[in-house]
Amino acid sequence: MALVVAKFGGSSVATAERIKNVASRLVRRHNAGNQVVCVVSAMGDNTDHLLDLAHSVNPNPSAREMDMLLSTGEQVSVAVLAMAVQALGVPAVSHTGAQVGIVTDESYTAAKIGAIVGVERLRKDLDEGNIVVVAGFQGINEAGEITTLGRGGSDTTAVALAAAVGADYCEIYSDVDGVYTADPRICPKAHRIERLSYDEMLELSANGAGVLQLRAVEFASKYGVVIHARSTFLPDSKGTIIEEAPDRMDTNYSEGVVISGIAHDLSEAKITMRHVPDRSGIAATIFTRLGEMGVNVDIIIQDVSHDGLTDISFTTPMDDVEHITGTVSEICREIGGEGVEINTHIAKVSLVGAGMKSYPGVAAKMFRTLADAKINISMISTSPICISTVVDADECAHAVQALHTAFGLDSEEEENNVKVVR
Amino acid sequence: MALVVAKFGGSSVATAERIKNVASRLVRRHNAGNQVVCVVSAMGDNTDHLLDLAHSVNPNPSAREMDMLLSTGEQVSVAVLAMAVQALGVPAVSHTGAQVGIVTDESYTAAKIGAIVGVERLRKDLDEGNIVVVAGFQGINEAGEITTLGRGGSDTTAVALAAAVGADYCEIYSDVDGVYTADPRICPKAHRIERLSYDEMLELSANGAGVLQLRAVEFASKYGVVIHARSTFLPDSKGTIIEEAPDRMDTNYSEGVVISGIAHDLSEAKITMRHVPDRSGIAATIFTRLGEMGVNVDIIIQDVSHDGLTDISFTTPMDDVEHITGTVSEICREIGGEGVEINTHIAKVSLVGAGMKSYPGVAAKMFRTLADAKINISMISTSPICISTVVDADECAHAVQALHTAFGLDSEEEENNVKVVR
Repeated sequence: MALVVAKFGGSSVATAERIKNVASRLVRRHNAGNQVVCVVSAMGDNTDHLLDLAHSVNPNPSAREMDMLLSTGEQVSVAVLAMAVQALGVPAVSHTGAQVGIVTDESYTAAKIGAIVGVERLRKDLDEGNIVVVAGFQGINEAGEITTLGRGGSDTTAVALAAAVGADYCEIYSDVDGVYTADPRICPKAHRIERLSYDEMLELSANGAGVLQLRAVEFASKYGVVIHARSTFLPDSKGTIIEEAPDRMDTNYSEGVVISGIAHDLSEAKITMRHVPDRSGIAATIFTRLGEMGVNVDIIIQDVSHDGLTDISFTTPMDDVEHITGTVSEICREIGGEGVEINTHIAKVSLVGAGMKSYPGVAAKMFRTLADAKINISMISTSPICISTVVDADECAHAVQALHTAFGLDSEEEENNVKVVR
Repeated sequence: MALVVAKFGGSSVATAERIKNVASRLVRRHNAGNQVVCVVSAMGDNTDHLLDLAHSVNPNPSAREMDMLLSTGEQVSVAVLAMAVQALGVPAVSHTGAQVGIVTDESYTAAKIGAIVGVERLRKDLDEGNIVVVAGFQGINEAGEITTLGRGGSDTTAVALAAAVGADYCEIYSDVDGVYTADPRICPKAHRIERLSYDEMLELSANGAGVLQLRAVEFASKYGVVIHARSTFLPDSKGTIIEEAPDRMDTNYSEGVVISGIAHDLSEAKITMRHVPDRSGIAATIFTRLGEMGVNVDIIIQDVSHDGLTDISFTTPMDDVEHITGTVSEICREIGGEGVEINTHIAKVSLVGAGMKSYPGVAAKMFRTLADAKINISMISTSPICISTVVDADECAHAVQALHTAFGLDSEEEENNVKVVR
């Protein structure tokens, strides 16, 4: 008997029919002898509907009231899903985030989970034979106010609950059937990855793979929660398992480098400060100021200095560009730079794989592959298990495909110790 | 400076536009120096929409999950109304029933308020200058489960909160502008009543006047909360004040009988057990059995006995008739009665007024008035401040009009010490 936490997103519960499908899924797991906790998001476009309503009375509503409003979305989902389970003859109870004691900080609309204090209640429900349905995305702060967790919140709720109740694993259902070696929409030869480490998944998520939210993977890594990314609509697909040390050596004792996949990200922009005086502390000045503004900076590159001048470039989410442009120009002026260039037409293409660090040839092979494909690299960044390059947005698909082939990911068979299946 | 609790029903907050209207109403009260607490119901047809959703996944959902689902309706209303108040520049916070500690019993879908334990929070919000918006109709039980109060719940929430915070009065807004001497839809000469005692209002509510829910009036009477029934859509109308001892003698020291109004009720049926042996304890047997089934019995009549046989009749809500018919027939057979007659085409017409008891002539005048109008009375029931008669449903409007005229309620001026205005 396993204890499973299963999370279904908004599209999986968008209609009464789909809710019934999820209910049968849960009942099947329950009847097979498992204890089942389910975390759900708000139904399909319910959140948009509530946002429209809010903005029709107030163009700029308070964050507290926004959370009060939006949290009703998941409360509807959990109640209806519990009813649908009951209709199949299995007892079920639903809970809000507050009811299972998901305690967050005070940041309305983007709260962080601080503790889960209501697990006994959930365990009691399970021990009495219930399927327990919990509202994702929401919590309650110390003052008893309702908060929401913001982007990726429901995945995080599921992983956090799985950690708190000591679940055997946490299934995250979505409309894709796992993590792929590349985005199948731009790389038709991409394959589903069977197993991944937290570190690899973190790099993939951080570099654009949208299957799992970065913060949920971080949480899972911190508490050792095994994640199983699965498809809502393809019940027979095996999905992808994310865990501490995936056992990928069972059939192949080679020490070959493990490339798990190619991620890409079209959501960032590149900002360059031109001809900045190359004196010590200049980068510190710039990025301290940007940090104070809460700007997320990803890749940072400082060019080799010429005549005491250098170019400093960084990437940042496209959404932030508008609101930081003024400050960046001001900083550039203050430090005596020539001016600011903004390029929103870029793609970040990243190669992710454990053990890459021990193989310096990997980076060289990556750059050579892109050069052979006549793709110009404008920025490079490396970590122990990831190499990211910034290229022109038009070259994105081409770069992903070329790297996918060059690193042997096109095969249907076991390749580089990563089992891949169609 | 007054502390006011104002309650708005579902039709008053059915659209974003109407919510904005309610918000301006509240802001005007607030800016006039009052502390304002507002209780709201779910938006218009939101509850129906949620019921449809529930029934589309489960024809018979559990009451607990139903409350979990339906309570989201008021949570949406309070958040959006708070936002609408904020848009007018006045600080506002919303609260669920749970957040202000409206503790109920365990009866899902028809819970009763047992205590209000979160009033400090509400007072703190008020002291900080907020308009406080509270979800009506809902509470939380001792186990932390969400409950709803059922029919008339939001009125009851408002009155209970008014009692708990020591409000100066509780305004109940609806689409009628107060309590009338009779239902204006069937009695065009009916007038708004300016002041009423709790007892009179209880009789009017219990006998069919739909303006205020009986249980809310009972609560108000118990804790001495002054209710002001007002119109949402006619801001200048003065409405009706319901209080312990209305001051109606100011201009007229007559000891004349005070008739406050004529109520009518078409929602009951009359059930008669024919030719029942007239032995002691027979009524006890019948009504104990019905009480055990949870049947609400209103008027009971036992006819004068002939040859040791009698007829026993009672009225009960039409909605219950179907489910009790079998039992009633069974009881009738057991006690040796001849058979059961059911008449669903009846009207209860009631004359309500304080001090009536001291004027035996009132009943006589009532019966004579109906006789003169050729209306046959089939049942009679009296209390210290109310005389009810059961007549044929077709005669209902005629009976109300005749009594309204006979008891001098048609006048536009002060009449029988009740101030009435058009």
